[in-house]
Parts: sequence; C-alpha cells; structure tokens
Amino acid sequence: MHDISPSHPRYRSLLLRDKMAQAYREGILADSALIAHGRGEAFDYIFGEKTNPPAIKAIRAASATLLLAENPVLSVNGNTAVLAAEDMVELASLLPAKVEINLFYRTPPRVVQVERVLKNAGANEVLGKEGDDFLPLKGLEGPRSRAHPEGVYIADVVLVPLEDGDRAEALVALGKKVITIDLNPLSRTAKKSSITIVDNLVRTIPLIINEVKRLRECSRQELEEIVMEFDNDENVSSSLELISEYFKRDEDS
Amino acid sequence: MHDISPSHPRYRSLLLRDKMAQAYREGILADSALIAHGRGEAFDYIFGEKTNPPAIKAIRAASATLLLAENPVLSVNGNTAVLAAEDMVELASLLPAKVEINLFYRTPPRVVQVERVLKNAGANEVLGKEGDDFLPLKGLEGPRSRAHPEGVYIADVVLVPLEDGDRAEALVALGKKVITIDLNPLSRTAKKSSITIVDNLVRTIPLIINEVKRLRECSRQELEEIVMEFDNDENVSSSLELISEYFKRDEDS
Repeated sequence: MHDISPSHPRYRSLLLRDKMAQAYREGILADSALIAHGRGEAFDYIFGEKTNPPAIKAIRAASATLLLAENPVLSVNGNTAVLAAEDMVELASLLPAKVEINLFYRTPPRVVQVERVLKNAGANEVLGKEGDDFLPLKGLEGPRSRAHPEGVYIADVVLVPLEDGDRAEALVALGKKVITIDLNPLSRTAKKSSITIVDNLVRTIPLIINEVKRLRECSRQELEEIVMEFDNDENVSSSLELISEYFKRDEDS
Repeated sequence: MHDISPSHPRYRSLLLRDKMAQAYREGILADSALIAHGRGEAFDYIFGEKTNPPAIKAIRAASATLLLAENPVLSVNGNTAVLAAEDMVELASLLPAKVEINLFYRTPPRVVQVERVLKNAGANEVLGKEGDDFLPLKGLEGPRSRAHPEGVYIADVVLVPLEDGDRAEALVALGKKVITIDLNPLSRTAKKSSITIVDNLVRTIPLIINEVKRLRECSRQELEEIVMEFDNDENVSSSLELISEYFKRDEDS
C-alpha cells in the first residue's frame, strides 16, 4: 500500500487501484483483472472521472427496466465484487433481485472468495456458488456458459457490470434485457447490450439505487415510457461524441 | 497462462498481457505496473494498435536526437524491461548509449530482477544497480531522485519510456532532452517531454533501431535540421486529433 494524500487530484482513483491490487494479492482476482482495471482507468480519465449526461440517461432507463422486470438478476464478477459488493447487495435487496456469481476465469478458490466478499457485504442468498446447479447458456462454451437455473437462466433482465462481449451477445440472443456498465463505449459489450451505462461502476451503482428509490413511486406505464424513449445506439454515440469533443478541446488549448 | 489463438484479432495484445502477468507473479513488477499496462492497452486500442503518422515523425526526431547526443542514456523501468529488454539493449549497443535502471517503486529485489532481465537480454553494463553510486536529481525526492553519476546525472539526452510526469519535468528542468514513449497523449509526461512518441514501446523501439541505422549515414547538419523541424506540442496535438477523429468516425457509423 502506498500512502495517498486525500488532496491528490486523483485520490479516489488511486484508492481504487490499491483496493484492486490488494484483492489481487489475496487471490480474488485473475491476472487479467488488474489490466482490465487499468483500461477502465484510462477511459474514466478521458471522461473526467465523472458521470456524464449519456450515463445519467442510461441509468434512468436501467432503473426503470429493473423495476419492470419479473426476474431481475445482478451478475457479479471479481472486479465488481471488489469494487462494489455493498452497493450490489443493497440494490439486490431493494428491487429485490437475485445475485449470481459469474467469473470469466472461474476457479473454485476464486468463486469461494467472491462468495465470501458478497456475504460480508450482507448478501443473504448467492447463486452460482461452487456445487450449485447450473445449465449451459446457448452460444457459449465452458465455464462462461454457466447459468443458475433459478438465476440468469430464467432471468428476463440481467445487470452485468464489466461483462465480456461474447456473453453479453449470447444473453441478448436468448431474449434477455442486458444492462451493462462499461467505460469503453467502443467495446463489443457496449454495442451489444440492451442498455449500456458508460461510466465507472463505483459511481453508477449508487446512482441506480437512488434512481430506483425515486422511480418506484411511478406507475408501470410511466416506467414503460422511460424505457421506450431510450435508444441505446444513440446514447452510446453520445458517449463517443463526448470523447471526441474532449480530445478536440485539449488539442485546441 | 491462457491459450491464445494466433487468429485472435488482438493476439499480440493478449500475448503482452500474459507476459506482464507472468512477470508480476515473478516479482519484477509493482502492483501498479499491471494497471498501468491496462491504461496503455486502452489507448493502444483507441489508436488501432498501430504506429500512427505523428509517432513516426517523433521517432525520426528522437533517432536524430540520440545520434547527436554526447551522453545518451536509456532509462529502463520494470514494464520496459519486461516488454522490450532485448530491443533496449540492442539500441544501447547501436548508438552507443548507457542503460540505467530507474524504478518508480524501487525495492532491492526488483532492482536485482530488472538487472537480471537486462543481462539476459545481452546488456554488458547496467547502471542504477543496487549498491551503485547515485546523486539526487534536483526537484525530486526519495528513490525517484536517484541518478547515476555517469548515467542520467550527466546525460544530455535521456530516452525514458513510460516515465512519470514529475520525473520527466525535473529532467527537462535540468536542461536534458527527454524522449518519452507514452500512449496517453494527455499525460503530463507527454506534455512535459522534449520529444513524445505516442505509441506502444514494443513497436517503437524496433522502429527507432531501424531509423538510427538509416540516419547514421547523415551529417550532423542534416540531423540537426530534422530535430529543428520537429515541434513536440504540435505533434502531440496531432495525436489528440487522431483520437478525436477516431471516436467521431465510430459515432457516425
């Protein structure tokens, strides 16, 4: 751990970095997790480390979609558990939604560790544990095709922060609404998902919690209107435009 | 290690990722190194994982500058050693230039490991080893201020791939020409250095080697003209414009 001064302009980002490095040393995360975190850092830096208007729009549509869902599931991988376990558990209990572990590089020890992190964060029930039943998702192979029969397998809406492109695509092909949180608006996940929130999940989940609390007073019809009005392709394009403008502005300065 | 198919569109990037993860497990790299690599990956992805025209221009100016130098030094950190030790050693012997270890999070075991990597790559002499003399660089504190009395301390030109902003700035303030290789054209390092090559160092160093071989036939006057004609601020702006255009193009598609 390095001492980080709260006055450092990138204090929060550096704290998260240390949290990730610590979790990696504890064996919760795969090798690729730190590198993936770094990619996220780069995009977050480009976005000014703040939640931008297109993300706010997507968060609103995502919250309405989660409230309308019959069987919503929150899918949790290693990075999500390390960065936002408490928030994910709070959101799950609020909706309510099921919580399912889904690791890209699934190993029994890591599954156990992620389960422990979720339980410590207050989760009552966790699906996708070692020894749990699972069914294969059509279009995927190996551990990545695992879906719990009472979780992702029957879900109509899945919130999958930091998902990989193949899995997002397969879930959509199965008729599920996929809500993803991904800082790279160029990723296949961003393009293939039903609702893409281009933002840092440590900021996003608390904002979804807030929005869900606000929107649960609304009628189904009002929620359906929010969902209908949202155009994901258009919204991802707005994020791309933001980046383009950002570099344009800097170039002129 | 994960099996990676050579047919994967991002095969090279995935190979480098595995190389970095492996080196981290061996203790050569600090925690932050994998995350830094991820940030680089994101920018490299944005640049299409190829060396772009502004980088080619900067590589030409850097090669001429290295050939004109009285005391050129190649500064090597952990990531550079892991990704490009052989190329750095070849470039050092070609110029010739000295090779100096410079670690942001300097610990004796890591210094020894980086030295071993450089020696295995064929380096005869390595400066900045454990027990080596060092003098502090004005404007820096702690291990980051270390400079070898016969290396960076007296160098007129320093090639420092992946340098941090403070150190790049301090070296420039001491009157040295700082050539950096940094995929983030917005970084302080990119802005503060004398010559900024916005590219992936695994592609850059072989291109510098090639350019040095080509340019060493030139007269000093010809080399000086190449250096004079190069405007770093303008060139970094061209890289920013490339990113802006890249996101603009995608947004329209």
